[in-house]
Amino acid sequence: MAEVAVLGAVGYAGAIAAQLLHRHPAFELTHVTARAESGQRLDDVHPRTRVPLELEVFDIARHAVDAAVVAYPHGAAAPVVEELRAAGTRVVDLSADFRLRDRAIYDDWYGEHKAPAIFGQGVYGLPELTREAVRGADLVANPGCYPTAALLALAPLARAGVVGDVIIDAKSGVSGAGRAPTHATHFISANENVSPYKITGHRHTPEIEQELGVPVTFTPHLVPVSHGELVSCYVRTAGDVDARALFREAYADEPWVEVVEGPPGMSEVRETNFCRISVHEDPLRLIVFATIDNLYKGTSSQAVQNLNLMFGLDESLGLPA
Amino acid sequence: MAEVAVLGAVGYAGAIAAQLLHRHPAFELTHVTARAESGQRLDDVHPRTRVPLELEVFDIARHAVDAAVVAYPHGAAAPVVEELRAAGTRVVDLSADFRLRDRAIYDDWYGEHKAPAIFGQGVYGLPELTREAVRGADLVANPGCYPTAALLALAPLARAGVVGDVIIDAKSGVSGAGRAPTHATHFISANENVSPYKITGHRHTPEIEQELGVPVTFTPHLVPVSHGELVSCYVRTAGDVDARALFREAYADEPWVEVVEGPPGMSEVRETNFCRISVHEDPLRLIVFATIDNLYKGTSSQAVQNLNLMFGLDESLGLPA
Amino acid sequence: MAEVAVLGAVGYAGAIAAQLLHRHPAFELTHVTARAESGQRLDDVHPRTRVPLELEVFDIARHAVDAAVVAYPHGAAAPVVEELRAAGTRVVDLSADFRLRDRAIYDDWYGEHKAPAIFGQGVYGLPELTREAVRGADLVANPGCYPTAALLALAPLARAGVVGDVIIDAKSGVSGAGRAPTHATHFISANENVSPYKITGHRHTPEIEQELGVPVTFTPHLVPVSHGELVSCYVRTAGDVDARALFREAYADEPWVEVVEGPPGMSEVRETNFCRISVHEDPLRLIVFATIDNLYKGTSSQAVQNLNLMFGLDESLGLPA
Amino acid sequence: MAEVAVLGAVGYAGAIAAQLLHRHPAFELTHVTARAESGQRLDDVHPRTRVPLELEVFDIARHAVDAAVVAYPHGAAAPVVEELRAAGTRVVDLSADFRLRDRAIYDDWYGEHKAPAIFGQGVYGLPELTREAVRGADLVANPGCYPTAALLALAPLARAGVVGDVIIDAKSGVSGAGRAPTHATHFISANENVSPYKITGHRHTPEIEQELGVPVTFTPHLVPVSHGELVSCYVRTAGDVDARALFREAYADEPWVEVVEGPPGMSEVRETNFCRISVHEDPLRLIVFATIDNLYKGTSSQAVQNLNLMFGLDESLGLPA
Repeated sequence: MAEVAVLGAVGYAGAIAAQLLHRHPAFELTHVTARAESGQRLDDVHPRTRVPLELEVFDIARHAVDAAVVAYPHGAAAPVVEELRAAGTRVVDLSADFRLRDRAIYDDWYGEHKAPAIFGQGVYGLPELTREAVRGADLVANPGCYPTAALLALAPLARAGVVGDVIIDAKSGVSGAGRAPTHATHFISANENVSPYKITGHRHTPEIEQELGVPVTFTPHLVPVSHGELVSCYVRTAGDVDARALFREAYADEPWVEVVEGPPGMSEVRETNFCRISVHEDPLRLIVFATIDNLYKGTSSQAVQNLNLMFGLDESLGLPA
Repeated sequence: MAEVAVLGAVGYAGAIAAQLLHRHPAFELTHVTARAESGQRLDDVHPRTRVPLELEVFDIARHAVDAAVVAYPHGAAAPVVEELRAAGTRVVDLSADFRLRDRAIYDDWYGEHKAPAIFGQGVYGLPELTREAVRGADLVANPGCYPTAALLALAPLARAGVVGDVIIDAKSGVSGAGRAPTHATHFISANENVSPYKITGHRHTPEIEQELGVPVTFTPHLVPVSHGELVSCYVRTAGDVDARALFREAYADEPWVEVVEGPPGMSEVRETNFCRISVHEDPLRLIVFATIDNLYKGTSSQAVQNLNLMFGLDESLGLPA
Repeated sequence: MAEVAVLGAVGYAGAIAAQLLHRHPAFELTHVTARAESGQRLDDVHPRTRVPLELEVFDIARHAVDAAVVAYPHGAAAPVVEELRAAGTRVVDLSADFRLRDRAIYDDWYGEHKAPAIFGQGVYGLPELTREAVRGADLVANPGCYPTAALLALAPLARAGVVGDVIIDAKSGVSGAGRAPTHATHFISANENVSPYKITGHRHTPEIEQELGVPVTFTPHLVPVSHGELVSCYVRTAGDVDARALFREAYADEPWVEVVEGPPGMSEVRETNFCRISVHEDPLRLIVFATIDNLYKGTSSQAVQNLNLMFGLDESLGLPA
Repeated sequence: MAEVAVLGAVGYAGAIAAQLLHRHPAFELTHVTARAESGQRLDDVHPRTRVPLELEVFDIARHAVDAAVVAYPHGAAAPVVEELRAAGTRVVDLSADFRLRDRAIYDDWYGEHKAPAIFGQGVYGLPELTREAVRGADLVANPGCYPTAALLALAPLARAGVVGDVIIDAKSGVSGAGRAPTHATHFISANENVSPYKITGHRHTPEIEQELGVPVTFTPHLVPVSHGELVSCYVRTAGDVDARALFREAYADEPWVEVVEGPPGMSEVRETNFCRISVHEDPLRLIVFATIDNLYKGTSSQAVQNLNLMFGLDESLGLPA
């Protein structure tokens, strides 16, 4: 059984990755790391994980096991990924450090890349769209949560020919802002509130544009739910497109994408690896909704889905339904 | 002191209208009506109103006081408004029955109008845009909550020349769905959920188009807050427009419209008559956010604002800040 | 593989029972029933279950399979359970119809029993306390959610000798009130609110008193969470009791009871079969907290735990962790 | 018009005190202070206050106006209050620094008192119980939020003779934990959760015991609402007490205490100065519920109520209803 470590296991994404891998039938979770909380057990910090492992400070000598999920902040991930790759460990990186292919765009949005020698070597790991590349890959860049939802919502149309640009009005639960306590994530700020943020400047914009191939207006909003994400996409296509048929066909064989008639709600995919999509024809344009759990299909369960592919396993093994 | 009645006072809108008028320095709330709850006191049904009046069954002989706020469902309002007008009572009608000017459009969206003799006689009461018409009017059609936010967000641009159509991605708290218990308004359905609804078919669409003069794609979403509404508007304008200056100028003298730099959050206007707006320039288009409390500026406090104007009072009298 | 049906599968409890049994490795869920929703698929009514079975009207000729979970209202369950037992189907009944042993008490709290011939034949199915009786039972009365938490919180002390009576201040998420839309379960009523209900008159009182053997003051409160339940118990015991040791010992071998140092939070057991307990010594008395998910350990996953025992399976098979 | 300053105006309590005083008909809010946020306007930090004053660093030379509301943390308040008193400024102190009368108990719970020369000089300002003492006082110790609710719930019984001790099971919204972002106040921690905290060790215990005169078991719980507080009190009294009559009589002339039949819900008093109480007779004991808004009657509007009394004004002037 392949041994796997989760690096940065006390953030929400790392904790859920650890929880899923701890219960996974084909991986053995052997290490969880965290600096400030080292010495504590993960299930003390995050009871729901029920992972009784002690958190350790990262040490390449001990943690270069068969595979690692790296749940570090952007920028901090790159050098650790480089170390792990040098040691032969296969990596799914949850940060943005290996998602972008254009170095200038990366540096512009995230600052200078910290492991330029391996920049661009990550395979973009959105299995429904890039499955073949993920199989056998050694370094997978796990997509951002918004790009996951947006690309699943728009890829079939992109292939059919999007005319002009796309508007993505996105709504995300508060866990998307991370575990660090801030004024924005304080219960009193987020509760009974909805507010747009990072207008015209969210870092997922270039990632979506790279994968989609057209410019986008991307506007995220914070909504008072714990997890969940919904993208409402407004798009025009060339000529006569039977959009619903297009989506049904595109995802007919995908176990984790559900194309439904009525608009999907966030709660329908909570704590699962599912993406739920509906397509609607307005007199003026197409509207596509896609909803995922930002911490599952948007991050951690998708990381496991990628790991399954990388190790030649059944892609759905251990994924939460 | 003018005597005023609230008809349909147990719905959320009616209850808040009653609460505001009960405390109003220049109106005396003399009657509150409701059929099923008649005999109960309003503050038993809605403790927060602290209106100790007994709910009565509507009776034109007793309730044709100086003014009435009619908080009936669409369709049910029209005949009652007709009775009240015939008796000389000035009316602010919260329903859609007197908002639209095109009878065919009304009938198409709401069914056959129930008081055709006075169809079209309502003055559209969005004071910041139609103040002069409201002054002295006898029948004011109080705008829908979404149109209130959308029109305040878009009117300055409409005057400057909107190119093409407009996309309005709207988010509303659950009180917008009314007080009747339904599966959609059940706590378990709405909590930890965000879901689009009435895609391409919400009745506020023709109202917005009528007042704005351009076609719109209007997509409402239900969000888990009690009250509050946010519209995110995507629009292109002709030529070089200094959008921020346009808004600052348009609303410079408006006490209830706040043009702010950063994007506004719903909670900033909760239980007030304020509308808070910000304007942002994306490389592809303008983005305008406007937030109101759907039950206050979106309905009941705007009704009081209209009443103030109709009676020649200080427009801001008794409005919650 | 034993065939199992869930009767009344569109209520929250029935839906979750169906979801768990549909994925259970040793049961085959063959039927789900519901009157009003018959013809629809369960995953249309409750997408999260992802149970693609069509809802049927109950028919003893078809639904007397190996086992049934009956998720009917109190009173309505008894006659159906009688039919199923007569047909040889083993039953876990989620209602209160077979929990009480004193017919007069039952009739007093619930009205006349509808299947008096088999009154009292249910085994009270709280595995941690009544495991041996459940093994091999044909009719198990699944405990109420509050009694589950309260009894797990108090049983070790009851054995050690409770002095006088017990105060149980209980808090429950809104799903405990059922799926029927009511004013109390409307989002606007429950959100941003905490309110006591059924003071001195909640039907779980006699059930707790029966199993505990002492009188209780039981005070439930509605809290704005979707699921979850917490009981705060105030109790005095005779003589010197090392309460923490008592609890650690009592539940040392129980996989689904976690005795922890700090007070537990509802979210730590959400959507699992766990009960999490802490014990604290106040100068005046002992305080015991227990938290469960009211729909899982409090209802549906406990029903599966009981089914596992009844069929001689590993007790934990298919239980959500 | 008396000039008043709010010291520590960016915490929740200070901000609401400033909001109320800014709109107060008989006080002029002239200064708001805060160290870290000095230079910003209060309505930038807290838009809902709509107080356009600039936040200043506290300076006794400028801020010793007629009256001050001090919204500093425990310990930090005492020396500032001493300065203000020396300068002749009348003070309502929101901290615990002048609530306790026994120096040893203060030091035990809060650490050594920082202004021992004036320790014990505060009048405990719960108007319904200590009104006469507050009138004309120069230094009022505003009660804690839990003591406010608990004392209003228990004072009538205490006078009638409580037998033994009292159990207070309290539930508070998250704002009670203050504005500083912490893991406990992170939306993800508090949302969909209820958890007890500070079992047997909450600092409001000695305050309640001092004013009530009997020992209490006080157990606070954090609930996922923004503001609101409910205490559920369990108590035995000597002899035959008509508890409801007792309460109705005790509060017959109190404008801000509502004695109601059914149990009160937090939302019924949200953002008001009301306390809402109900009394119930269980076979084993009395149960009294009291609910307040922890930031209004529990803190800031009560501070204004006290200021009104201190300045000989109508006690209810400017209080939110």
